[in-house]
Amino acid sequence: MTEPSQPRPTAHPLPDAALDRLFRAARTHNAWHDEPVSETTLRALADLMKMGPTSANCCPARIVFVVSREAKARLEPHLSAGNRAKTMAAPVTAIVGYDMRFYEKLDRLFPHEPDAPSWFNGSQEKIRSNAYRNGALQVAYLILAARSLGLDCGPMTGFDAPGVTRDFFAGTAVEADVLVNIGRGDPAGVKPRLPRFSFEEFCAIA
Amino acid sequence: MTEPSQPRPTAHPLPDAALDRLFRAARTHNAWHDEPVSETTLRALADLMKMGPTSANCCPARIVFVVSREAKARLEPHLSAGNRAKTMAAPVTAIVGYDMRFYEKLDRLFPHEPDAPSWFNGSQEKIRSNAYRNGALQVAYLILAARSLGLDCGPMTGFDAPGVTRDFFAGTAVEADVLVNIGRGDPAGVKPRLPRFSFEEFCAIA
Repeated sequence: MTEPSQPRPTAHPLPDAALDRLFRAARTHNAWHDEPVSETTLRALADLMKMGPTSANCCPARIVFVVSREAKARLEPHLSAGNRAKTMAAPVTAIVGYDMRFYEKLDRLFPHEPDAPSWFNGSQEKIRSNAYRNGALQVAYLILAARSLGLDCGPMTGFDAPGVTRDFFAGTAVEADVLVNIGRGDPAGVKPRLPRFSFEEFCAIA
Repeated sequence: MTEPSQPRPTAHPLPDAALDRLFRAARTHNAWHDEPVSETTLRALADLMKMGPTSANCCPARIVFVVSREAKARLEPHLSAGNRAKTMAAPVTAIVGYDMRFYEKLDRLFPHEPDAPSWFNGSQEKIRSNAYRNGALQVAYLILAARSLGLDCGPMTGFDAPGVTRDFFAGTAVEADVLVNIGRGDPAGVKPRLPRFSFEEFCAIA
């Protein structure tokens, strides 16, 4: 790090409109406007979400953006009944999987520690826990990056993950874990907001 | 859902300054200004991050915000050597754990499905995979919510998680998984930006 420490103004929040869009007013969408998401937008989305932090920069998420009718048809039989129609209607469904051989890329992603790939040698439990933990972080980055670009999301885990892994990640060590429908949501399909815990129910200050 | 579907403008991104703060310019921090984070700010942070989506609204994350010297001293022996000094210096360290009995709260969090708690009956694997997947999503929501409030983060997994579980979540079914230092970071402690994959290396359009 070369630049010197510099004073800067005390932390200030993003404007309310941004906090609303990211967290407060954002909702899981179940119905979609028939408005395509361009490849340019998908690339902008990937460029944002990939910047989120992961352990040792391991970046285990691998994504197939399902857009074509043919690929949607391959996905359809793996969806749980309640997720089928809305997923078929979504402009894009991101299949997010995690690469169980992510550590082989650490020589490139974490170059100042040439031994990093060997940290995982033969430790299946360590590989899986890191892939799943950091992959899930990246799912959340994807959701919030999509919202920050003005897109709506419908994340889902109700699908046959081994089946999707076979059909979309054949010949790799990637395991499908989460689907995220992406597009411009129709508010008519949004369900009532579910309750959240109060601060005291899930947080403490020690 | 009662409100009718309404037209709204085509998706537009947040301003560049917000995208920079959330993703592009945001960095993992290792040095901290000596500037406390108020309880008001911690409550605002919790109120934002808790709105992020989880499967069946299961919200498994439980957080201890370690602020006092005494609590920091309890945390210190569990930290890996490389994480010790910076964590002791951080205004706040959030210990994020996941409640392995999260499903007992689904009657409240997912009230329209009274059978939801029973979905997890006796399935330790399903409980753990849901707790860890959704808990990790919530860690990412915490990081991005902190950034959206103008705070900096230093997330870490280099610590003795069973030890922290014993010392901070005794008598509960919560398992510590990730620590996040929070405060106003000193840019002097930021390391050079690590590489990321190109679009083709981790994404495909099908």
